[in-house]
Amino acid sequence: MKQDTKERLLETGLGMLLQHGYNDLGVQALLQETQTPKGSFYHHFRSKEDFALQVIDRYMADVHKGLELSLGNSALSPLGRVRRFFELSRDKYRQEGYLGCLLGGVGQELSGVNEVFRHRIEECFQIIAAHLATCLEEARRQGELPPDRDPGALADLLVDCWEGAALRSRLRGDPEPLETMLDFYFSALSRS
Amino acid sequence: MKQDTKERLLETGLGMLLQHGYNDLGVQALLQETQTPKGSFYHHFRSKEDFALQVIDRYMADVHKGLELSLGNSALSPLGRVRRFFELSRDKYRQEGYLGCLLGGVGQELSGVNEVFRHRIEECFQIIAAHLATCLEEARRQGELPPDRDPGALADLLVDCWEGAALRSRLRGDPEPLETMLDFYFSALSRS
Repeated sequence: MKQDTKERLLETGLGMLLQHGYNDLGVQALLQETQTPKGSFYHHFRSKEDFALQVIDRYMADVHKGLELSLGNSALSPLGRVRRFFELSRDKYRQEGYLGCLLGGVGQELSGVNEVFRHRIEECFQIIAAHLATCLEEARRQGELPPDRDPGALADLLVDCWEGAALRSRLRGDPEPLETMLDFYFSALSRS
Repeated sequence: MKQDTKERLLETGLGMLLQHGYNDLGVQALLQETQTPKGSFYHHFRSKEDFALQVIDRYMADVHKGLELSLGNSALSPLGRVRRFFELSRDKYRQEGYLGCLLGGVGQELSGVNEVFRHRIEECFQIIAAHLATCLEEARRQGELPPDRDPGALADLLVDCWEGAALRSRLRGDPEPLETMLDFYFSALSRS
């Protein structure tokens, strides 16, 4: 039952954090939305910052599921698996109404003033890029990428460009920037 | 003298908005920083929102200067001019300590909850992309780009990827994501 309350707070909080950002997210509004007493929130979370960090952990758990589902799909070529991960992310964005990426949102908002979030979000991007780099390395071994390409640098670049496209998608409420970016990136790789 | 006060508020406010974001920017802190009485702030600006929108106008005035300086540089090829614009932006980011792009920051933070900012920031990106597209069109005319490339789509893509690289640069306090992105983009165009 207690676990249910925590789950509900994290689940609802994720949607609210994605829409409102950190500073505009009211703990009071979250309590009202989830019909949770204040004491219960502070039983599960030390502070609003602790709460947001746990929302990010939860978001990353979903990201890991997406990474497993796509990068572990042996029916696809290594580059196909990498692309699949971003297509799954795009599908998730669609369900949320194209609000972009939580990591990009929180990272933009807080990294100028909060070192804890700055390091945590950068770490999340590094973790995602490391998984993608392993698959790009496999693409290189199989000849899908030329031997002089650096999988680590390509993975970081892909994450970065995706984040920019996700911001534009958020501004326009539209998946087109995401698809244009993926098409450009993978077509540049296959031409290289 | 009154104009000086307004200038000082916008100038200082730009730096504070870039670092803090919108919701964490305290009008009180701005008044203290600029030694301005509260009444003077509300003489020049109807509200904090009005202030932030005027800071964005000021930011765009700088962007237009950068666009003129780079896209009007006839010593460079059309693609060289487009790249130059982003190199000038990178130089500006360096002076600010790599805090990224004000438009991306405010756009991420507010577009989920504030339609005025969402439309204004999208409009800013469209204006920038339109200038770049004109120069990419010229690149196509001169044979620097193949005839089947769409200058408008390429310009939007470039703005989007840049914004993602600017976010990563903000997270890392480092220009490398910006340079990697520009290298990838322009090398993909020259190979196409």
